[in-house]
This record gives sequence, C-alpha cells and structure tokens, in this order.
Amino acid sequence: MFFAYPEEWNQRESTHGYGPIRLIWGERAMVAIITIPANQRLEPFHKHPNEQMGVVLEGETTMTIGDETRKLKKGDAYIAPPNVPHGRAATSQTQIRMLEVFIPPREDLVKQAPRSK
Amino acid sequence: MFFAYPEEWNQRESTHGYGPIRLIWGERAMVAIITIPANQRLEPFHKHPNEQMGVVLEGETTMTIGDETRKLKKGDAYIAPPNVPHGRAATSQTQIRMLEVFIPPREDLVKQAPRSK
Repeated sequence: MFFAYPEEWNQRESTHGYGPIRLIWGERAMVAIITIPANQRLEPFHKHPNEQMGVVLEGETTMTIGDETRKLKKGDAYIAPPNVPHGRAATSQTQIRMLEVFIPPREDLVKQAPRSK
Repeated sequence: MFFAYPEEWNQRESTHGYGPIRLIWGERAMVAIITIPANQRLEPFHKHPNEQMGVVLEGETTMTIGDETRKLKKGDAYIAPPNVPHGRAATSQTQIRMLEVFIPPREDLVKQAPRSK
C-alpha cells in the first residue's frame, strides 16, 4: 500500500488538545496534518526524541523552539531537533493548518490505532 | 537556526528537470517543495535508498510506485519505501505542487550548495 487518499489516512485526537490530526507513516517517518482552531488555548512546551519538521499550510502562528521565537505564516517552516523543547508561544486568531514530519514515527501516535491498510 | 521563511529555504534545480525545488533539512530528514509545470515531460522512473513520502499541495498527477499506479490530487499522499522505483506515470495538464520528505536527506541535493544559515 503505497498511496493514501484523505479518507485512508489515520486519524487521531491530538495529544495537545488541538482536535483531530491526520497521519500517515512509513518505516522511518510520519507525516501529520494538524488543524488548530482559532483561539485554541496554549499547551505546555514539550519535547521528544523524534526530530520534528513542519510547514505552515494555512493561517498564522507563533512558535518557540529552544530559545528562539518566530511568527510563522503559510510557507514558513521549522525544524525542532530531537529533545529540544518546542510549542506555540501565542494563541492565534485564525485557524492554523500545519504539515508536520516526525522522524522516526511517533510511537505514541502509532499505538493509538491500527495502521491503515 | 530552527526556522526558515520561504526566502531562507535552499533552492535547487530538480534532478528530473522539473524546475526549481525548495529544500530544508535537519539531521534525519529533508523536506522539499517541488513545482512541476503543466505538460512537463515525464522522466524515467528512479529509486534511491532514501525513504520518500509526499503530499499533493496543488494540482493533479498520476504516480507509479512499484507496481501500483494512482491518480493523486490535493491532500492525497504516497510513500515510496527505500529502493522502490517510482515516478510520474502521465503528464499533467495542470501545474503540480508537491511536498516531499526524504529520509535521510538526499545527499546529492545537500551537496549542491551550502546549508542555509
């Protein structure tokens, strides 16, 4: 199974209370599309041994990674190296859609449900 | 340097003659945004030891991975496991924009120019 239409992606509740996230993963990486509603409350910064990269697909957000904070809009990208704390630094008045990559796949998200066919 | 605005992404010529591709990479993965003009000629199928995942951001395309061929449109995704031949299987009458992930980063693309600050 090499392809996934939107209805074939896995779906999870975000661990950060953001609402559903859509997931696919291979051997080495997981791609997630995360939708965060406008005015969603901030969650504590967090870290994990997975490297994380992301690209903003829609909306605007403010992120902190380590000691660096930046506003991000559509087309902006970030890299959170393994074990570096990161998170949103301000609430957003717009809905945000982000594509995020976790390397390797996040085991906590893989385990929540069986893999897509 | 954890963030990259569009002008800070690296830019390369595609190895498949598709036109410029925008790249960022971390330790473990590379994210590329590839724009393929309408009616772009097909290139030979190819393979590499990097796992590759992709999501269509704009337009429609037809891809073959291994022995499977599918039409893909915005929001559709694919996974090409390491060393599995893949490529576009038909020309497209629309411009296509894809977000692709290579795990690990493609060394051939890293070497073409120095890393962004």
